Amino acid sequence: MDSKSPERIIADETGQQRTLGYVHHLYGDRCETIMEMDDRHTNRHGGLHGGINAILLDSACGFAASRAWSDDGSQLVVTLSLTTNFLAPAKSGPIKAIGRVSHAGQSVAYADGQVFDGNGILIATGSGVFKRVRNS
Amino acid sequence: MDSKSPERIIADETGQQRTLGYVHHLYGDRCETIMEMDDRHTNRHGGLHGGINAILLDSACGFAASRAWSDDGSQLVVTLSLTTNFLAPAKSGPIKAIGRVSHAGQSVAYADGQVFDGNGILIATGSGVFKRVRNS
Amino acid sequence: MDSKSPERIIADETGQQRTLGYVHHLYGDRCETIMEMDDRHTNRHGGLHGGINAILLDSACGFAASRAWSDDGSQLVVTLSLTTNFLAPAKSGPIKAIGRVSHAGQSVAYADGQVFDGNGILIATGSGVFKRVRNS
Amino acid sequence: MDSKSPERIIADETGQQRTLGYVHHLYGDRCETIMEMDDRHTNRHGGLHGGINAILLDSACGFAASRAWSDDGSQLVVTLSLTTNFLAPAKSGPIKAIGRVSHAGQSVAYADGQVFDGNGILIATGSGVFKRVRNS
Repeated sequence: MDSKSPERIIADETGQQRTLGYVHHLYGDRCETIMEMDDRHTNRHGGLHGGINAILLDSACGFAASRAWSDDGSQLVVTLSLTTNFLAPAKSGPIKAIGRVSHAGQSVAYADGQVFDGNGILIATGSGVFKRVRNS
Repeated sequence: MDSKSPERIIADETGQQRTLGYVHHLYGDRCETIMEMDDRHTNRHGGLHGGINAILLDSACGFAASRAWSDDGSQLVVTLSLTTNFLAPAKSGPIKAIGRVSHAGQSVAYADGQVFDGNGILIATGSGVFKRVRNS
Repeated sequence: MDSKSPERIIADETGQQRTLGYVHHLYGDRCETIMEMDDRHTNRHGGLHGGINAILLDSACGFAASRAWSDDGSQLVVTLSLTTNFLAPAKSGPIKAIGRVSHAGQSVAYADGQVFDGNGILIATGSGVFKRVRNS
Repeated sequence: MDSKSPERIIADETGQQRTLGYVHHLYGDRCETIMEMDDRHTNRHGGLHGGINAILLDSACGFAASRAWSDDGSQLVVTLSLTTNFLAPAKSGPIKAIGRVSHAGQSVAYADGQVFDGNGILIATGSGVFKRVRNS
């Protein structure tokens, strides 16, 4: 179930991705979005800004959703709704978000995700609803 | 109700904030978090990355929650949960998230938010639950 | 904006509705779902069971979404996702949920809602994403 | 991990529970909330009313949270926020919601849940944030 090496790695694809420095690793059953933690990502407490968890979950779950309709993750999707639960502060990086599809229909897919810090502590969970859109 | 000039402006406070370039404007009844839109914030469609809406909502709602317990927004809070609904793509900046508290108890506050693009189009809505934590 | 008398009242339409005893009041810009509070609705604390807030919000927001596509609320919709925030316990009935559409596209609509108890206290807020489905 | 027989069964505890007819089965690592499906639970499509999924998830996740602080599930908790994703219609009963805690701190616990229909189809997922309150 847990394949060892990613089928595809996606880096530097969007401006947002370059700014924050995360990379998508596409596995057979999931997308792992991995980000080193540095000064770009800090909050008022000096730790990882919580909003980053939302961005990583959105990305990992969105790619998982895309792959429900396209093996290579090329299908464009838009997020309809995303909920993020913030469980614990991140102690150290790298931060890893894992997204998996729970259900994909004709036009809408659902995905769940978890975010772990560098020590393997579960720091956030979330779920999203994604809609397939026409590739331009 | 809608005061004309902010009581306080908070810029460059955190690494995350500097990286993405948003600024908090604290008004009597709300926090407005404003961000110019540029190459740092783009998604696969070339538009505003949806995750940014989550970050802006988290920030605007979090500050609104903080001010439920401290006039100057100095009270530290952590986000317990945040839901973001993505209504429409942003056509142009600046992007403005507005957060308002719906209820604040002893230790937990709730806030709702909206995000507008530069044309005044409502592009996202959301709500968050925030917990008061001890200032260090 | 706040019209005084409902354009339509919907009672006893579904088994769920009869079981819990709520009634939909359709106004021009919103749906109000109203429910007397009794022994059918209590939680472990003897107050209103929180889950009821979710049901009322789902109903009020779902009807508001339906009416974005059909004046009389006959358009069938399914809820894709619903988030409920529980702000305060209900002191007394009747409980009133108000749902309003924030955005409606071709196939997906978004609605926000509030729930008030009989004293006018805001006891819950929420938001939902709804999809239009073919009427059978 | 998946213990075979429940450590405790809780039926008829609240008015809400009696009205809808669900029963909690407490296992070592989870709460299963099980409900036969009948005329009390139907929606406009004649199927299971979506809001029921929210009630079952709230109950199963809330009990899981309670047990993070009390083995017998006697610790009272209030739900701060609950998100429900509606994946598929229920074809037949009994409906089973499973709630598990993902993280429990001093005062706040997080739980995730899934809802299955009688055929074992995943019909809903969700997550909730719960706060420990003083037992009266």
